[in-house]
Amino acid sequence: MQVSEIDEFKLINRLSNLVKSNSSKIELGIGDDGAVINNQNDQQTIITTDMLIEGTHFLKDKVSPFQLGYKSLAVNISDIVAMGGRPTYLTISLGLPKSTTVKYIEDIYNGINNLAQEYKISVIGGDTTSSPNDLIININLLGEVPKGEYISRSNAQVGDSILVTGNLGASKAGLEILLSANYQKLKEEYPYLINKHLEPQPRLSEMQLVKKQFNITSMNDISDGLASELHEITSASKVGALIYEEMIPISHSTKELAQNLNKSTLDYALFGGEDYELLFTTPASQSQKVKEKIETELDTQISIIGEITTLDKGINLIKEDGKVKVKKQGYNHF
Amino acid sequence: MQVSEIDEFKLINRLSNLVKSNSSKIELGIGDDGAVINNQNDQQTIITTDMLIEGTHFLKDKVSPFQLGYKSLAVNISDIVAMGGRPTYLTISLGLPKSTTVKYIEDIYNGINNLAQEYKISVIGGDTTSSPNDLIININLLGEVPKGEYISRSNAQVGDSILVTGNLGASKAGLEILLSANYQKLKEEYPYLINKHLEPQPRLSEMQLVKKQFNITSMNDISDGLASELHEITSASKVGALIYEEMIPISHSTKELAQNLNKSTLDYALFGGEDYELLFTTPASQSQKVKEKIETELDTQISIIGEITTLDKGINLIKEDGKVKVKKQGYNHF
Repeated sequence: MQVSEIDEFKLINRLSNLVKSNSSKIELGIGDDGAVINNQNDQQTIITTDMLIEGTHFLKDKVSPFQLGYKSLAVNISDIVAMGGRPTYLTISLGLPKSTTVKYIEDIYNGINNLAQEYKISVIGGDTTSSPNDLIININLLGEVPKGEYISRSNAQVGDSILVTGNLGASKAGLEILLSANYQKLKEEYPYLINKHLEPQPRLSEMQLVKKQFNITSMNDISDGLASELHEITSASKVGALIYEEMIPISHSTKELAQNLNKSTLDYALFGGEDYELLFTTPASQSQKVKEKIETELDTQISIIGEITTLDKGINLIKEDGKVKVKKQGYNHF
Repeated sequence: MQVSEIDEFKLINRLSNLVKSNSSKIELGIGDDGAVINNQNDQQTIITTDMLIEGTHFLKDKVSPFQLGYKSLAVNISDIVAMGGRPTYLTISLGLPKSTTVKYIEDIYNGINNLAQEYKISVIGGDTTSSPNDLIININLLGEVPKGEYISRSNAQVGDSILVTGNLGASKAGLEILLSANYQKLKEEYPYLINKHLEPQPRLSEMQLVKKQFNITSMNDISDGLASELHEITSASKVGALIYEEMIPISHSTKELAQNLNKSTLDYALFGGEDYELLFTTPASQSQKVKEKIETELDTQISIIGEITTLDKGINLIKEDGKVKVKKQGYNHF
């Protein structure tokens, strides 16, 4: 059945049956003009929004609708996590070409709902409408954080260590596979890279654990590439940074693929983007403890990749063959 | 300058300079991964979202970017108002074709900001991205309402009067002008109709006044047409409704235009949609007082158009030439 064949109200009804509420604080959910939430007294609300558009953010034939829904929420969760918050409520706006099947839309919702359940997020509303050309998904996500406990990007201090979760560049490598003429073969060969690109795992547990026990002075999620996020932190904190090429975590598959395609692994890690790993700073005296704590308790790799320097130094990368300035370049949508 | 010629960060910076904060409760606004808001203890949060897509919701050559921004927010404010809430914070997602000029985007923001200032709403974040074909605007709006004081659509009682603010069908008449071959001439002749379609005025003051002094049992904003909204209220409240053709408020211009185009004025009012007037119910004993109060204090026309009946009666319209069932038909996006 195509979306043009179903009554809009019936569609909304079908879609709302796909989602479940995770909260007793919802006074009124889907089905009215808006949703009503009972706030807790000592919590602050966080809001983030991200729009995915066919042709710009994804190619419909290279991603399943489930993955599309999953990723559209994952990128928003990652933003809330990078603020030190817990994701809570979301709304979904869908722009749908007339030829979209109801099954396809339901699968998008299933992808969203699957991740929402895992992170105990409630879907509380949305808007579905017709789109003349491209499929569009916009998610707006709320989060909460105890009063005054959010983590901004503007408090990194000279001497702090710079850390990242997981490894970098794998998502870019996955994207290269999707765009490659050799797609089918490479996809089978490197499932990890495809997965990192299509189903990134937001680092909620990691953030919660480090925040609870350590002084985290700044945090960003790596959506636009390490270089770009590092520039955001140093610019907001009015500091510089020094990072070491040999310390940047890059997976074996990423290195192998880059080599196969004759591309620079370092470029993938610095400028590739969409890794949705966490980049954060903590006093140097704590960095080793942070690393051990997370690696022991969550089995998540943590890398200390450098340190915060004074503003006048800018951002420098110590390469194996010398020192270079790190350009701000990241993924630019335009 | 086209959007493809400007650095994304510079664009965001320019855009954030266009908006102003209206609240001391914003702990952290535009410029980080998310925004942080201090909640009040005794308030509930309301969330609503609406997506406007070129070709589906508007034609770029018939609407100014200012009007586009204005309307994209107006439709969301109207949703918050219909819940009995006060709009507070908004995020904006923009999908922009590469050829979009920065001026055009700034004018969209100006349109949003103009209305935001009028309603004391703060713009707290957003997402701008490239769109391969169509211009897309998605606004997510939060609102607040004192605990337990929101107005749903599900509490209309048998015997209640049915009221509407303003007049109906004018927005549809305005749309017909935009789509007409005679566009230039009709536009000059009927500025009121064009204005009702492109710059609807959400009824915040009216809602606040009636809510303060009277028992409002249900409320919807008329986005999909009177028939559709009435069906939503009766279905949610498990009641029926009886309305009178002669009581439905229709402006002189709307009647004249419909006659010129050989269309049914009643169809405009029942099924036209996008009026963004309020439809609400109140005990019959109060309806005349509600009408007088709003007309005296705010100079806004209020019409008592019928009454709530039992569920088994359905929705009936008393026409001048007899009684008919009112179909659920409204604007269907697909």
